Amino acid sequence: MNLELSNQYKYYGMWPVAPTPFHENGEVDYEGMERVLDCMIDQKVQGICILANYSEQFLLSDDEREKLTKLCMKKIDGRVKTIVTVSHFATDIVRPRAELAKSLGADIIMMMPPYHGALLKGNPDQIFEQFNEISKVGIRIMIQDAPLSGIELPVPLLTKMINEIEYLTCFKIESTQAASKIRALIKNCSERLDAPFDGEESITLYADLEAGISGSMSSALLPEKIAPVIDHFWNNEKDKAEKIYNHILPLINFENRQCGFRATKTVMKEGGVIKSDFCRDPIKPLDEDTKNLLLNFAKRYDLLTYKWGK
Amino acid sequence: MNLELSNQYKYYGMWPVAPTPFHENGEVDYEGMERVLDCMIDQKVQGICILANYSEQFLLSDDEREKLTKLCMKKIDGRVKTIVTVSHFATDIVRPRAELAKSLGADIIMMMPPYHGALLKGNPDQIFEQFNEISKVGIRIMIQDAPLSGIELPVPLLTKMINEIEYLTCFKIESTQAASKIRALIKNCSERLDAPFDGEESITLYADLEAGISGSMSSALLPEKIAPVIDHFWNNEKDKAEKIYNHILPLINFENRQCGFRATKTVMKEGGVIKSDFCRDPIKPLDEDTKNLLLNFAKRYDLLTYKWGK
Repeated sequence: MNLELSNQYKYYGMWPVAPTPFHENGEVDYEGMERVLDCMIDQKVQGICILANYSEQFLLSDDEREKLTKLCMKKIDGRVKTIVTVSHFATDIVRPRAELAKSLGADIIMMMPPYHGALLKGNPDQIFEQFNEISKVGIRIMIQDAPLSGIELPVPLLTKMINEIEYLTCFKIESTQAASKIRALIKNCSERLDAPFDGEESITLYADLEAGISGSMSSALLPEKIAPVIDHFWNNEKDKAEKIYNHILPLINFENRQCGFRATKTVMKEGGVIKSDFCRDPIKPLDEDTKNLLLNFAKRYDLLTYKWGK
Repeated sequence: MNLELSNQYKYYGMWPVAPTPFHENGEVDYEGMERVLDCMIDQKVQGICILANYSEQFLLSDDEREKLTKLCMKKIDGRVKTIVTVSHFATDIVRPRAELAKSLGADIIMMMPPYHGALLKGNPDQIFEQFNEISKVGIRIMIQDAPLSGIELPVPLLTKMINEIEYLTCFKIESTQAASKIRALIKNCSERLDAPFDGEESITLYADLEAGISGSMSSALLPEKIAPVIDHFWNNEKDKAEKIYNHILPLINFENRQCGFRATKTVMKEGGVIKSDFCRDPIKPLDEDTKNLLLNFAKRYDLLTYKWGK
């Protein structure tokens, strides 16, 4: 690994999102959650992010979020770094979530700007203020720039926020044409950054590496296959990095465009990591054809998730 | 009141949304909540809807929703009809909210179709299924057709849902060109309907009365001033109805376009109903100019909310 790069920022490498498993009756499978985390640590990830959108955070109750935060932090037990997602429209609901994550030793909290539904979207002042308020909790914040919020976060606003909000030192950019935005932000505030990351299943990883990211928030489907792309890139072995990236891209593309957050659950069930690929209503599990195509990929690529519990 | 009309449907009249008051420190003001309900009952409303968007449901925690549901149902104590809003993206989270409302004796639950953020929107099958599933709880459902969800609910889908889902017998239409939609729905399924309502501060009330609504979900700002519009309309005194409507329209328009859910709180604070017009971050109270213009309206129209606690 290129030491110069890895020293430039505090955090680097693969930080996948943990999926949230459910029982067939719709209840959270807490024991399965622990097995997901063990499997991810065996994937040799640098960090784990919980309660993200790929974790179906929008289908969880407040109580379940709190229980999952406590259980995951205890189970991970410092073996890898941790990010706890705490987004909510109300700052007063974000704050206790951030305080809990900090008290349990999380490294970073992740937040989208305040949004609700299709129409309630924080304006620049409201966005700045929510992050500035939560910064007072005293834990590093990763701002998540994702289309789900419906909010456009322009580079000047992000630059101002990163430069002026004490604990806002990490970003995950997964909006359209992510690499250009990442490049601009690194140019504008590299001194302040602890973790310039991309996300969205690492579907834009190679372009984002060229733009200067230090890490990627993929899913937990195949992080052990994505990690060498980053390693070779940093070792100035770009040809190797690109070759591996091009090799895994068809699977990532299939995950990103055909499956979404159901991909990891489907393969983890087949691989004996979790008992069920149940998705809470109104989400259905993958249809049989898509599932079979995905499992063919998983077998062909020899994924750890496909064999971990067998 | 026109008996023929009032007998045609089970529910009719003014069913305003109760605002949720907060203390200056951001905590829910439960005592203030009780005063809001008493004030609304003094406005001689037929029903009260709690936890709607005008109640800032998107700024409340699960625990606060539950406490508010219990407190409001107890405080109202059968004096007027009740609607409890239970919307959530996850059907498994909607269900216990619906069961709680039923167990406490609510007349109706209100639900938007499943949505989260700008991009997660139930498709027609998912929407149908969530309502069909919740119908099994056995309490009348009002489907709320509001732009906030970002979901377009076309007339054929709504018709099918109302005709096929046992307890879905009420609607509140507040989407663009509401009256046309209301007219079409009443034509398609009037036999099934218990409450064809409009909403959105009653800003489209007159057109919606022409289209056949039996009731309106305004805010709690001035329901006592809106009620005569409905009464005269049903008594075939359309000229009187329209004259009163045109008289109050400037205030409703100012509320709807310049204030939103902050209007009722602002006037209720001035009128001694509640102690604070605090809005949870990232929402700010009205700016001073807007507030003063609103209070001038409230005084000029001699609103009960403006004098109830003085």
